[in-house]
Amino acid sequence: MDHVSITGSPLDIVHMTKLVTSPSSGAIVTFIGITRDNFEGKKVVQLEYEAYQPMAELQLKKICVEVRSKWPSVEHMAIAHRTGLVPVTEASVIIAISSPHRGAALEGAQFAIDQLKASVPIWKKVSHPALVVLLEVRQTNCIVPLSGPTDQLFSATDQLPYFVLSLNN
Amino acid sequence: MDHVSITGSPLDIVHMTKLVTSPSSGAIVTFIGITRDNFEGKKVVQLEYEAYQPMAELQLKKICVEVRSKWPSVEHMAIAHRTGLVPVTEASVIIAISSPHRGAALEGAQFAIDQLKASVPIWKKVSHPALVVLLEVRQTNCIVPLSGPTDQLFSATDQLPYFVLSLNN
Repeated sequence: MDHVSITGSPLDIVHMTKLVTSPSSGAIVTFIGITRDNFEGKKVVQLEYEAYQPMAELQLKKICVEVRSKWPSVEHMAIAHRTGLVPVTEASVIIAISSPHRGAALEGAQFAIDQLKASVPIWKKVSHPALVVLLEVRQTNCIVPLSGPTDQLFSATDQLPYFVLSLNN
Repeated sequence: MDHVSITGSPLDIVHMTKLVTSPSSGAIVTFIGITRDNFEGKKVVQLEYEAYQPMAELQLKKICVEVRSKWPSVEHMAIAHRTGLVPVTEASVIIAISSPHRGAALEGAQFAIDQLKASVPIWKKVSHPALVVLLEVRQTNCIVPLSGPTDQLFSATDQLPYFVLSLNN
């Protein structure tokens, strides 16, 4: 079974691994993406994620389909992405995949996070102590427009300079 | 920091991920090896692991050194292997690796489990309902001898037929 979610709540690694546990699975691989304390040489205090939820969840489901087409022995998948403020050391994304043997889960997890970074419409805003806000656009090939909405997304709350970066981590 | 342990207690995914969490890590990858309900076409009800603890922990430390030599950006590693009875759906091994970016953690985790399966002196005994005991020898190149000790290991408690298999999952 595939479980995908975009949620404002903290992510729970125990819940995610339980979602993919089954008697016939011998391996579970999890990838956890975490807010780290630096970005492009600058100190980071938190990240903030915003998503267009219906499209983001649709893209996550497409990733599950792609993983299953490449690794048919995958048993269960769970992908959750957190929105809102994510402090340093907390998880923004967790991917969990189970399979009878380890190869499919290991390779599927790597593929899934690569695809998520490349295709899912989730915006990442990096905040550091100097109050310069860097707006990072995670998606590269979705139809959510960049011009206009990116201004509107943050200008209501942050009268701060920002610029758009491509994701490279 | 590297954390390795051979333990008779259930493994805790939350504890393992906390061991490798740091403010400068943007990625954590975990591999969880689990008792599954079948082996070589036969139903399995539980696995039992026995280890020569000093040598097993030494081998786990060597795996950490190897991972760091190949992926110098790895920040923290934790490898724990459970001994004793491990029922279906419970974890026998957890590997957790953190790194600033995801590549090192993903590749390091795959390498670590491959090395663990190939080099760590841990014996796996597969029990299925017909009470035929399959003895699987996980290590292939350690100095723990196979003849004699394998009989002694289990004959005291299990007056049952067994045979030796190489690890292939």
